[in-house]
Amino acid sequence: MTASTSTFRAIDVIRKKRDGIDLSSAEIEGLVNAYTNGDIPDYQVSAWLMAVVLKGMTRPETAALTDAMLHSGDVLDLSDLPAKKVDKHSTGGVGDKTSLVLAPLAAAAGIAVPMISGRGLGHTGGTLDKLEAIPGFNVNLPVADFRRVLATCGCCMIGQTAEIAPADRKLYALRDVTGTVESPYLICASIMSKKLAEGIDALVLDVKTGSGAFMKSEKDAAFLAELMVETGERMGKQVVALITDMDQPLGNMIGNALEVVECVEVFQGKGPEDLRELCLELAGWMLHLGGASKSVAEGKQQSAKLISSGKALDKFRQMIELQGGDPRVIDDFKRLPQAQHTVQIAGTKAGYIASMQCEQIGTACVILGGGRERKEDSVDPSVGIVLHKKVGDRIAVGEPLATIHYNSEAKAARAQQLIEASCEIAQAAPPKRPLVHRIIGKVAG
Amino acid sequence: MTASTSTFRAIDVIRKKRDGIDLSSAEIEGLVNAYTNGDIPDYQVSAWLMAVVLKGMTRPETAALTDAMLHSGDVLDLSDLPAKKVDKHSTGGVGDKTSLVLAPLAAAAGIAVPMISGRGLGHTGGTLDKLEAIPGFNVNLPVADFRRVLATCGCCMIGQTAEIAPADRKLYALRDVTGTVESPYLICASIMSKKLAEGIDALVLDVKTGSGAFMKSEKDAAFLAELMVETGERMGKQVVALITDMDQPLGNMIGNALEVVECVEVFQGKGPEDLRELCLELAGWMLHLGGASKSVAEGKQQSAKLISSGKALDKFRQMIELQGGDPRVIDDFKRLPQAQHTVQIAGTKAGYIASMQCEQIGTACVILGGGRERKEDSVDPSVGIVLHKKVGDRIAVGEPLATIHYNSEAKAARAQQLIEASCEIAQAAPPKRPLVHRIIGKVAG
Repeated sequence: MTASTSTFRAIDVIRKKRDGIDLSSAEIEGLVNAYTNGDIPDYQVSAWLMAVVLKGMTRPETAALTDAMLHSGDVLDLSDLPAKKVDKHSTGGVGDKTSLVLAPLAAAAGIAVPMISGRGLGHTGGTLDKLEAIPGFNVNLPVADFRRVLATCGCCMIGQTAEIAPADRKLYALRDVTGTVESPYLICASIMSKKLAEGIDALVLDVKTGSGAFMKSEKDAAFLAELMVETGERMGKQVVALITDMDQPLGNMIGNALEVVECVEVFQGKGPEDLRELCLELAGWMLHLGGASKSVAEGKQQSAKLISSGKALDKFRQMIELQGGDPRVIDDFKRLPQAQHTVQIAGTKAGYIASMQCEQIGTACVILGGGRERKEDSVDPSVGIVLHKKVGDRIAVGEPLATIHYNSEAKAARAQQLIEASCEIAQAAPPKRPLVHRIIGKVAG
Repeated sequence: MTASTSTFRAIDVIRKKRDGIDLSSAEIEGLVNAYTNGDIPDYQVSAWLMAVVLKGMTRPETAALTDAMLHSGDVLDLSDLPAKKVDKHSTGGVGDKTSLVLAPLAAAAGIAVPMISGRGLGHTGGTLDKLEAIPGFNVNLPVADFRRVLATCGCCMIGQTAEIAPADRKLYALRDVTGTVESPYLICASIMSKKLAEGIDALVLDVKTGSGAFMKSEKDAAFLAELMVETGERMGKQVVALITDMDQPLGNMIGNALEVVECVEVFQGKGPEDLRELCLELAGWMLHLGGASKSVAEGKQQSAKLISSGKALDKFRQMIELQGGDPRVIDDFKRLPQAQHTVQIAGTKAGYIASMQCEQIGTACVILGGGRERKEDSVDPSVGIVLHKKVGDRIAVGEPLATIHYNSEAKAARAQQLIEASCEIAQAAPPKRPLVHRIIGKVAG
């Protein structure tokens, strides 16, 4: 623990943040660069991160952190593509599969969607895990291939590469083991640095709130949303955030292959109402920000048409093919990984589903093997849960509540317990929660 | 950054402290033991330390941390010595040399003083550096020798050994580079764990306040003092804390060899009034807690007699000899390291010394080479500062303010600037600050 010149600067930055003194852009940039280059040790950065968690950051500090993380690696220049580049990012939830619908849908409207996604962690699912349920689908494309697929079909969905925001990769790994994940400022910088590195013009943020979201309260979700919108705007991007409901799973299916099925159903004009509605809402915004429609309402109508005409599904098929996947899964769900067994959970009490502990349902899917408790865990794409009832629905004793798709009896038993315990039955229907709670941003809809 | 079982426990403890939830003794002990054994990494502990700095600790948490650090290594058992074991600890200041007087003085009264001291850091001096100004003096005695010297002459002064509170050693090194030094809870646990490992019955704490102290305000000093007293009492020790003045240097001499000279002068019944008075006050408490006097007042009188009779100086001489030092320095100060040059600083403005920026004077001594800016720096024992005026004294233009003892012109010039800038001259005498501001503890004086 010897003190190098750069260590000395680091400690000044730590002390300032500890004492609640605002940091300059140069100080934040210095810290991020020194850490990325390995010039300051983890133990100084983790102390600084904890000070940030407990003392917060100003808007300029948050923007400076985002900017420093963004410029710690390559920033894609997609100016050679004539289309407007628009992406969507969700803060994560249970059954949240809209990305798989939105990228092809917006691409079908002529927008370019250069989507760099993440994996599931904790109780939430991840877009990359869902895509990998499609046999052969490659999410690890080099940047050159990413550009080619994007130029060819208008959308491409990959994982974070080593070149994109390496500071975020290093900082996230440290935050994960030091209790410093839960800070809106750090979450904002992490999300926005990666998204802005994609070379986009505009971004639609889906900030989840409710029992299945990381931000349980609408207040916390709105705070994060405002932070991200303002940070994006400071960096010259059009950003809008929708605070959307995650007090119960989105759609009926949870689990990687099952969620691909449900997305195909949405493309086929079927699928559950809430999922379909949220996809149209988010697509409406993407089309509007991307200049493909004059308003969000027009963007929604246009999106609905692209679905009913089959053009959105064609785009999904094209993207799967270009990324090495087997597009035949679209016409034959049996080509997706199938769990060996299913078991139905029946209602044990009559009444209305008053609430669902959404995080517990996500955890049940993780227990089945559908998610990961640690980064290094592998995921079983075939397992999952199909809900037959959602919040507000009536249920009779013996009536199906959910079906578990599983490969291990012991895990299925634990998942069943969690799902049963997560559903509260009441004699009256609960008040209906809106799907979109609030819209935050300067852009008129 | 993979997650082992113990890593997982550490993160729970980090998160709890971050969220302001009290930790159990078992959790604190688990963290301290795991860190001492190398089972959890620095970066988790530094995040936890920052959470402690910003969220604080309860009294039971502070006691649990102290206890865990104390028991991370050997706790001396000195029960074979019939005398009561009493030590004194100072939170550090400029010209604060009382330990060199107090250990022999209390030993002369029949008390055993097993003193484990530290080195100077920052602007403050350290007892070990002062002792090492005496040619041959060995502060690195093994525990067996420490016991032997203590049994023979009643006092022994050494540095922290590897066996004593290794958790503190490791934690302190980490705190030093992560901006987590400044927490009364962590300071309390660090001090008390080392002091209680000495196998003492009672402890007198000298908590400094003012411009040369780590705790600048009396409020902060009193808070730390109460914390240490209560922690000591919880662990079955008699503890009293004196909040004493450090708004100007203690005594007139600053610098390692110079401070040995001033201590010898106190033993000879001379020396500056403030130093002599504080030594008697602290000795009075040591004698009283050690059962050598019925009251503090009686302890002070007895101490004054031990000085005037020469018995205290004899004890100092004996300790120097037993620890390998050259006792002839007592009779011939020229045997102490001497700086090559001296220069006098003269008053440039007539009036009263209204205040001294005490930390700056300490820093001036560090710049001369008398202290260390980094742990690995070596110390020049010969350099230092002799003050000819103290706060409240009149000074005329051209009258001597201070003398600098130096070995480098460039360093002397920088030190002179600092000393001149540190003294404020006013036309009226400032109100006199008391030497002892407050006494904290349950023991009646």
